[in-house]
Amino acid sequence: MLNGERKIARPLRWAMVGGGRTANVGYKHRQGAMRDNTAFQLVAGAFDIDAARGKDFGTNLGVDPDRCYPDYQTMFREEAKRPDGIEVVTVATPNSTHYEITKAALNAGLHVICEKPLFFEVAQGEEIKALAEARNKIVGVTYGFSGSQLMLQMREMVANGDLGEIRMVELQYTHGFNATDVGDKISEGQKWRVDPKIAGPSFVLGDLSTHTFYMSELICPQLKVRQVLCDRQSFIPSRAPLEDNAYVLIRYENGAVGRLWASSVNAGCMNGHRIRIIGSKASIEFSDHQPNELLYEVQGQPIQKMIRAMPYLYDACNADERLGALHAEGLIESWANIYLKFAIAIDAKNRGDEATLKNLVYPDIDAGIEGIRWVQNCVKSANAGGVWVDFN
Amino acid sequence: MLNGERKIARPLRWAMVGGGRTANVGYKHRQGAMRDNTAFQLVAGAFDIDAARGKDFGTNLGVDPDRCYPDYQTMFREEAKRPDGIEVVTVATPNSTHYEITKAALNAGLHVICEKPLFFEVAQGEEIKALAEARNKIVGVTYGFSGSQLMLQMREMVANGDLGEIRMVELQYTHGFNATDVGDKISEGQKWRVDPKIAGPSFVLGDLSTHTFYMSELICPQLKVRQVLCDRQSFIPSRAPLEDNAYVLIRYENGAVGRLWASSVNAGCMNGHRIRIIGSKASIEFSDHQPNELLYEVQGQPIQKMIRAMPYLYDACNADERLGALHAEGLIESWANIYLKFAIAIDAKNRGDEATLKNLVYPDIDAGIEGIRWVQNCVKSANAGGVWVDFN
Amino acid sequence: MLNGERKIARPLRWAMVGGGRTANVGYKHRQGAMRDNTAFQLVAGAFDIDAARGKDFGTNLGVDPDRCYPDYQTMFREEAKRPDGIEVVTVATPNSTHYEITKAALNAGLHVICEKPLFFEVAQGEEIKALAEARNKIVGVTYGFSGSQLMLQMREMVANGDLGEIRMVELQYTHGFNATDVGDKISEGQKWRVDPKIAGPSFVLGDLSTHTFYMSELICPQLKVRQVLCDRQSFIPSRAPLEDNAYVLIRYENGAVGRLWASSVNAGCMNGHRIRIIGSKASIEFSDHQPNELLYEVQGQPIQKMIRAMPYLYDACNADERLGALHAEGLIESWANIYLKFAIAIDAKNRGDEATLKNLVYPDIDAGIEGIRWVQNCVKSANAGGVWVDFN
Amino acid sequence: MLNGERKIARPLRWAMVGGGRTANVGYKHRQGAMRDNTAFQLVAGAFDIDAARGKDFGTNLGVDPDRCYPDYQTMFREEAKRPDGIEVVTVATPNSTHYEITKAALNAGLHVICEKPLFFEVAQGEEIKALAEARNKIVGVTYGFSGSQLMLQMREMVANGDLGEIRMVELQYTHGFNATDVGDKISEGQKWRVDPKIAGPSFVLGDLSTHTFYMSELICPQLKVRQVLCDRQSFIPSRAPLEDNAYVLIRYENGAVGRLWASSVNAGCMNGHRIRIIGSKASIEFSDHQPNELLYEVQGQPIQKMIRAMPYLYDACNADERLGALHAEGLIESWANIYLKFAIAIDAKNRGDEATLKNLVYPDIDAGIEGIRWVQNCVKSANAGGVWVDFN
Repeated sequence: MLNGERKIARPLRWAMVGGGRTANVGYKHRQGAMRDNTAFQLVAGAFDIDAARGKDFGTNLGVDPDRCYPDYQTMFREEAKRPDGIEVVTVATPNSTHYEITKAALNAGLHVICEKPLFFEVAQGEEIKALAEARNKIVGVTYGFSGSQLMLQMREMVANGDLGEIRMVELQYTHGFNATDVGDKISEGQKWRVDPKIAGPSFVLGDLSTHTFYMSELICPQLKVRQVLCDRQSFIPSRAPLEDNAYVLIRYENGAVGRLWASSVNAGCMNGHRIRIIGSKASIEFSDHQPNELLYEVQGQPIQKMIRAMPYLYDACNADERLGALHAEGLIESWANIYLKFAIAIDAKNRGDEATLKNLVYPDIDAGIEGIRWVQNCVKSANAGGVWVDFN
Repeated sequence: MLNGERKIARPLRWAMVGGGRTANVGYKHRQGAMRDNTAFQLVAGAFDIDAARGKDFGTNLGVDPDRCYPDYQTMFREEAKRPDGIEVVTVATPNSTHYEITKAALNAGLHVICEKPLFFEVAQGEEIKALAEARNKIVGVTYGFSGSQLMLQMREMVANGDLGEIRMVELQYTHGFNATDVGDKISEGQKWRVDPKIAGPSFVLGDLSTHTFYMSELICPQLKVRQVLCDRQSFIPSRAPLEDNAYVLIRYENGAVGRLWASSVNAGCMNGHRIRIIGSKASIEFSDHQPNELLYEVQGQPIQKMIRAMPYLYDACNADERLGALHAEGLIESWANIYLKFAIAIDAKNRGDEATLKNLVYPDIDAGIEGIRWVQNCVKSANAGGVWVDFN
Repeated sequence: MLNGERKIARPLRWAMVGGGRTANVGYKHRQGAMRDNTAFQLVAGAFDIDAARGKDFGTNLGVDPDRCYPDYQTMFREEAKRPDGIEVVTVATPNSTHYEITKAALNAGLHVICEKPLFFEVAQGEEIKALAEARNKIVGVTYGFSGSQLMLQMREMVANGDLGEIRMVELQYTHGFNATDVGDKISEGQKWRVDPKIAGPSFVLGDLSTHTFYMSELICPQLKVRQVLCDRQSFIPSRAPLEDNAYVLIRYENGAVGRLWASSVNAGCMNGHRIRIIGSKASIEFSDHQPNELLYEVQGQPIQKMIRAMPYLYDACNADERLGALHAEGLIESWANIYLKFAIAIDAKNRGDEATLKNLVYPDIDAGIEGIRWVQNCVKSANAGGVWVDFN
Repeated sequence: MLNGERKIARPLRWAMVGGGRTANVGYKHRQGAMRDNTAFQLVAGAFDIDAARGKDFGTNLGVDPDRCYPDYQTMFREEAKRPDGIEVVTVATPNSTHYEITKAALNAGLHVICEKPLFFEVAQGEEIKALAEARNKIVGVTYGFSGSQLMLQMREMVANGDLGEIRMVELQYTHGFNATDVGDKISEGQKWRVDPKIAGPSFVLGDLSTHTFYMSELICPQLKVRQVLCDRQSFIPSRAPLEDNAYVLIRYENGAVGRLWASSVNAGCMNGHRIRIIGSKASIEFSDHQPNELLYEVQGQPIQKMIRAMPYLYDACNADERLGALHAEGLIESWANIYLKFAIAIDAKNRGDEATLKNLVYPDIDAGIEGIRWVQNCVKSANAGGVWVDFN
């Protein structure tokens, strides 16, 4: 059980690019990173494209005003001069900038934590992976929903055969907040998401389903995608060619199959993620609207509702427990679990502790690359008219 | 509100083919038909392929032993001789016999109520439709789940624009009772369902999804299927070529899209039908595990849970109400609603009351034919490797 | 599994007093009684205080117009003259008439099925019990919610120690339909319920909580009430002295305790009955809003949701199963189970089959008397200012 | 919307007494206090009765080892000598020590945040209140569940008449973790809770129901308790005279009534708090098992499920929003909201800003005293045999 005691010798000196006052996601990064104050300390930032606003914001967070920079280039350059300069940077900027900032950070000798979707092309991912290896650095990807310890419970249940052989994977990440185009016009965070120049080749596939796809890989690492078929729509025509709704069918190598539904026009839907893994004996189901529960449905037995923190869960799950039973955890605990593992990975990397790195389960550069591959293949299928494409 | 008072001048003289002691579904037909004793009276039957068992069974139901027949041919022939002979017959036998029994019944001057899937080929459906018209008879199809008055609530909400323009149709009818092949070997009712000679070209597509597809047509009559794509699996290999799991993607003519999932290997799933209709403003969702509720989710408003029998529902819904609020209805009320409409249709047909027939919403021969068409197209797509096929 | 086959040699000739066109509950009696047409046949009735309306109504139900009587006295007298006269009568009239009609029916040689609350005083119940015994007749009470087979599952679980020693009984039967006094003024069925001359000494205690109290006795027959304390309110002042809300605390002889809440002013509440039985090891919980489920919560284990019809339920539960899994049952199946047991009890009584009678679990005259006792003691406590009173 | 930007000029220098490695609740205090690092900084502590363990623990949290003290007396004395000494201390120790530590802290010039139940006697509360006023200091009480912004939504709905006139208050805080006495023997945190010398005059009334009672006062400040009646039990006999289960009936001055159920032997119950407020028009209901939802049930309308963060909630609610819709918050956000208000109160007190203090809604010394009063009156009633006692 986690209680805030340090897991690494000292907190890492950490900075953010983006994630300023108007960015909703920035708070999640900071809360995840600084949850226990023993893994990361926020010491610098280029928080905002508006430099003055970014400086004011950083100051209000308690960052030294002198270390609130107008842009990432300045930050990387100036921090490199300090004996107490930053060691790791989070990239929480629009999609189209991830690649260049990540590359610059690695070249500046920093570990990197980057928002999803990581980049636009698998080749970029491979290049950055090689660079990170050459620089002996970690690149982590903030699939922020995947940190719930119930994901690990699901992973353990699958690994232990509690479900029998896995036959189906049912994935959904949908909401209805873009049912109209109002946000496209007035929300800073939404505007760029439907602009292909900034968002890349997809809207909901990249913005939403990369999370869900990673969670399916986390839970069922043995399943390898063989083919996908994607049909995508732009119900708000001005979003075309970017989709606001996408259906994907999946064929895995071993004969298992799956479906994924990503949507921002599922009007009225408020339960976001829904994941169901179906085996020959039983199914498990998770919804992030109730992140403290897991349904375990064994065919022919009463439906079981497993509750977070209970001793009947696997040790690998309860290792990330913080609050104990009856005490609801939420999304920030999920982010905190991921950020803590980033810290442990960075510390291990710094110390050359490959054993720790090998056993640590977290969204690393490979997970980021798989997310790019997912989007690329889905878009390829959709653009070809919704046909089966080999996953590669 | 229905309270059992007669809707037609006198109850119809009714018989069953099949639906005997070992047939689970027979009880549902009888309960639906005789719910109020003012629409149908069970006066004869060829209940069982085992004639002695069928006679004993019918007698125990209160049928005159002399009118418990060894087979449908004898029944049709002998009843035709009686002044008080049967007027309508229900066909509750395995799929492969529906066509011949229905045809024989029509030729014997009877109205027919038949189990789904109606027949195997659209051409058969068209032939029977012509025959029924020539004989001035009704053919109804027991899509037994579609009689819930909340289906009519959904239909009214769609018609009245409460959801905005319909964009997506999400259909699911799944369970896990065939997750293993135990039932295939020991259950009479399951054995023939996985035998192509008796079940026809599909297992779950015909046995399950015809219900759900009809419900989608009932709720959204304005949507016309343009193309379907089906990927089907036989997770129990001995079931091949019949599928125990099927995924279908749907493209409607107006740009709406949909998905359907039919499965009998969704291990542990106990909630059967799930229907969600998504519009540009709101969604509605129904699950037959809780047939007394309807979710109405307007984007940007609190989620609304509508409860059966409440005055805020549309009149067309509450017209089929029986018990009043706080008093749960179940599947039999759904069957009873359908059977009552069959009776009203038959009575109107007998009286030549075309106005009543025109306005009556119930699963008629056209609904049966559409169900055949659905299965045919899905199987065609699946057999071609899971490709888009035009729906015709 | 019940499939409609006869449980007694022939259906009983049955009549109703009350339950006419304007009475919501009449339909439930008829549907419960005639569910299978092999237990009861409706052959006569004094359905309505408005004789012409009652005759029209009965005729519409298929009753011979000559056997639609203007009042119960006429019916009892005339039917006694017929060789095919009625054998059993249901009393579905306002509370204040139960005693005299039941007495008259027994004296007319009829078995009686009576609405709750049976009478107003325990002494009346004892008198009628003696009369019924003298006449060799059954008096049943329609605690209509208690017939769900999941009640028997709960009873078996308690008896088998699945919960450990029972510590607490949590009872609730509340709704909000009388949150205002509109119904008191315009609804026939509600007007008399708040008139002490007709309703008796209580409103919700008698109208609602007698059901729930019986269910607690059915589930936990070993618990004997030692003391009760009741605080009751009339939130609509014109209802005083009758309560529209009542809290009861219960002390059982063995140290167990309980609570009951009856209310018709629980604004917006749509889930009616809620029963939770808490033992030293586990709890079970039932809500009639979802009558196909039972929660089984073993301390330290995943919460179990048991689903009606599944083989893991006790045989005593599944003996009353009709539809099978995935097929929702509702309130009418509950009534049908009770009515079928009334028929079996009457048939056994007629045949002098005491062994069957002894083992048959159904709401008999003793259950009716206990309901009267419950209301009397609660009212006594409340009228004394909400103090503990010995239960006798 | 809260995003971590400072609400006061600089973070307060904060210490803890108790809350060490073996104390589950300590983590909640730290996470609540340090959520944003702009309100509190943990700079010292007397974390553990085992001084060495406490020092090791504090060091692992990043506290200067020299400021990890063996006991609170030493800490208060030594910190007072430092120019950067602590300003506020949290008391997270067993109940019997709250009074003396709080008194010592105030006398040492510190603001105090204390665990519930505050003390054992109202007189102690009044004394400390006077002392705090004399010293110009804040005393806050960590009713940790009350910080959810949905509490404020409920408060606003009541204040705005959305429910009509409040008639009933239904309160429950129950679990089953003490269904057996295993924990009484082996758990440090449980041992003292059933020891009257340390726990005080009650177990679950003080440990659980003080939270719930405060929440009812927060939501319905206009309701004043007139009388209570409490029946309490010790199902595990060794716990007597302390109760592991308690039922309370409440009469408010204006005619409203209520119930409270506190229990640690509600076997299998995993949903902790349940609060339902019932008005003449509508009810609202909250369960902390799903702290992101609120049921709003208007009589005669569809049940509404309100979701945290949505714009339809009152501004006073959304002012404490952090994550935005679709992103689950949990218990720590509730603690963080309370701690942030403690910080704002302390800062205002330091600045003599009475206007801010007057309008700030948080669990202050008065809330603590009311909690003591609640327990005292309930115990008085129970000890007198479960009789009505005037609330004073």
